[in-house]
Amino acid sequence: MNKTIETLLSRTSLRKYASKPINQEHLDIIIQAAMRAPTAGNMMPYSIIVIRDQEKKESLSHTCDEQPFIAKSPVVLIFIADYQKWVDYYRINNVETFCLENKSDFNRPSEASLFLATQDALIAAQNAVIAAESLGIGTCYIGDIMEHYEKHKELLNLPEFAFPVGMLCLGYYPEGYQQVPKKRFDKEYIVFNEEYKRLDDEDIKSMFKHLEGRFTYENKFNAKNFAQMHYSYKTNADFSKEMARSIGEALKIWNGKKI
Amino acid sequence: MNKTIETLLSRTSLRKYASKPINQEHLDIIIQAAMRAPTAGNMMPYSIIVIRDQEKKESLSHTCDEQPFIAKSPVVLIFIADYQKWVDYYRINNVETFCLENKSDFNRPSEASLFLATQDALIAAQNAVIAAESLGIGTCYIGDIMEHYEKHKELLNLPEFAFPVGMLCLGYYPEGYQQVPKKRFDKEYIVFNEEYKRLDDEDIKSMFKHLEGRFTYENKFNAKNFAQMHYSYKTNADFSKEMARSIGEALKIWNGKKI
Repeated sequence: MNKTIETLLSRTSLRKYASKPINQEHLDIIIQAAMRAPTAGNMMPYSIIVIRDQEKKESLSHTCDEQPFIAKSPVVLIFIADYQKWVDYYRINNVETFCLENKSDFNRPSEASLFLATQDALIAAQNAVIAAESLGIGTCYIGDIMEHYEKHKELLNLPEFAFPVGMLCLGYYPEGYQQVPKKRFDKEYIVFNEEYKRLDDEDIKSMFKHLEGRFTYENKFNAKNFAQMHYSYKTNADFSKEMARSIGEALKIWNGKKI
Repeated sequence: MNKTIETLLSRTSLRKYASKPINQEHLDIIIQAAMRAPTAGNMMPYSIIVIRDQEKKESLSHTCDEQPFIAKSPVVLIFIADYQKWVDYYRINNVETFCLENKSDFNRPSEASLFLATQDALIAAQNAVIAAESLGIGTCYIGDIMEHYEKHKELLNLPEFAFPVGMLCLGYYPEGYQQVPKKRFDKEYIVFNEEYKRLDDEDIKSMFKHLEGRFTYENKFNAKNFAQMHYSYKTNADFSKEMARSIGEALKIWNGKKI
């Protein structure tokens, strides 16, 4: 097994960091690796914001579902799905007039643009994760950056076609830290040959069985099984509802039309 | 510079493959690396479909914007944003009745669920890309798998809450192949400190300048500059419109409600 595979297989999320800053040379390599990630049509429809400011990290630790460890991470990277630069490039070069003259549609970024930009931003983020890990720097994704669109827009000074889709906390591993990989679902439930295999009820029960040890009848949701508990603390949690609302607001802008 | 960083920095898309099959052990490692990728709440809301069938690859080479090299790739991996298993798990465990009894909402997967699942699927895909690259296997992303939702749903036998978001062609490097990394936008236009930097018109002109050598007045779009040409062959192309339509159709299903 080569070193790269070892890194990919052993990496786990890190939420506790050694109390030392990130070496600038290391950060430069991490960013460089992110920027070399594959991107559709070489368009790079994303931006990366490097956050070191303590006050800003404190704000993010609140707006991202109250997670205090965010503020203790020496560097936070925010990945923005960003078509603003292409929108501006088209504007400067009179693409709208050109379309009018040639009787073709002038489309602004659409839901599909936001999907593509999100993909490219996360592909870049994962390159950053792997680069960091290979340098002894742990990372943790914070999907909650997709919540509170309006607050984050103000905090980060975002223009119209820029939506924060991913966030990484970075920090060196604390001394003696033991990586304990979490069990994933078995491969037979995730990987299929030639076409999707619709799992029947028995498959589903087997697939989720290892999670059910976590269930207790003494839970605040009145849940009678793990599925009901999981739905209550995850799918129906306030942060999930906020994420749905926030992304819904963003999608109103990425509608393929002028507002 | 360590080997992992070297791999991340030198990787380019590969669209021409050595004519030999993918070693099963290599494929197993690639899949394993994908499945160890970070995933929100350890939910793994994705599936991976391994395609080797020649007829299926031919179909994909047509539905994915007529790209013949897809059919010449020995293995194609399709990454599916997939909440179907969680929907079924909740169903089997009477989560809907539980919600009714406890007067709480019962929400089906929403736009936000599709975003989260897309992110996790692409993060897993990028782990596969890096693992493959470290084993001498090149890859190419095909975003066009997000087009023709209805056709791909049938081709892959997809249930309701499964949407194909990414596709990778895999193949060993042909002998003597030279990787030539494409120029990316300069870092000053992609990476910002502490907050987003809105680029002014002069910045935008500098940012895109290196692309404009590709412009020629003899173009079939009647474009007068590179931005107008780019808009015509990319943003306003048939495949872009089809992607917008296809994702729009998928989003009608991922609406947080029962249909």
